[in-house]
Amino acid sequence: MSASPIRILGVDPGLRNTGWGIIDAQGSRLVFVASGCLRTDTNSPMGERLRRLLEGLGEVIAAFSPQEAAVEETFVNRDPQSALKLGQARGIALAAPALAGLAIEEYAANLVKKTVVGNGHADKAQVAMMVRVLLPASFAASKDAADALAVAICHAQHREALSRARRA
Amino acid sequence: MSASPIRILGVDPGLRNTGWGIIDAQGSRLVFVASGCLRTDTNSPMGERLRRLLEGLGEVIAAFSPQEAAVEETFVNRDPQSALKLGQARGIALAAPALAGLAIEEYAANLVKKTVVGNGHADKAQVAMMVRVLLPASFAASKDAADALAVAICHAQHREALSRARRA
Repeated sequence: MSASPIRILGVDPGLRNTGWGIIDAQGSRLVFVASGCLRTDTNSPMGERLRRLLEGLGEVIAAFSPQEAAVEETFVNRDPQSALKLGQARGIALAAPALAGLAIEEYAANLVKKTVVGNGHADKAQVAMMVRVLLPASFAASKDAADALAVAICHAQHREALSRARRA
Repeated sequence: MSASPIRILGVDPGLRNTGWGIIDAQGSRLVFVASGCLRTDTNSPMGERLRRLLEGLGEVIAAFSPQEAAVEETFVNRDPQSALKLGQARGIALAAPALAGLAIEEYAANLVKKTVVGNGHADKAQVAMMVRVLLPASFAASKDAADALAVAICHAQHREALSRARRA
């Protein structure tokens, strides 16, 4: 396959910690570009925290110019209040790349784990380990950054099948 | 009371319809300035819908220069998936005024109803009717816009007590 390289932003949204990771993908070849984690102060007003996430993701997009974005579908637990809070962070994680005009895909956490580790119920440590195997240069990434890189890897694997399915 | 007038933005967040309303408040005197509703297409990708809400609220803020914002605390029903979606819209409703540097307060729906109608369990029609009584010039406001004006009225009534409580 002689697909042209594509730069992908992966985001693992969270109100307290939003991980982000950038990779270049060309066919099955993956190259680590950068990763990090945006943290917000739990004592700050909610609006300020969301603003920090939106501006932080905007800076990442401006700095690395990804062409596509992949966002992890936040785990929805049984508590609607927690789901609402997670939703706020996820709204920002989707709005930031949309503001920059990027195409965005959402991937369920299980699919990310299955794609990267081969097991939809893998734990965080297994995901982090496989991310380091697939992207050796990401060795210094934090756990949240590794999760975001895993979402980007998942998109790299699925994006062509998705666009083929849409064209069909 | 010779408080200086303050311009308030009220927002009733929703993914499909986000109501907004602007009022000027000087002591107990309230003046309608403008109101409207931002609608998003349920067939559009989530990122696009959130971008539309964020940009739309940004345009409202730029056009009317409110000094403070009040956002209704979204009703959290029992379904975590719905709560997550509402959370996404609410994240945008909080981020937009925060980006513009406005102070933001959140008010529970019950408190808004109690303040405007005198009954925390009032229905939408009663809220709309009282908004029209308090702000006669808002007669043409849609239901979502009237809800947003109610949030702004609620903030006008509570903001001084809130800031007194914080100073104490």
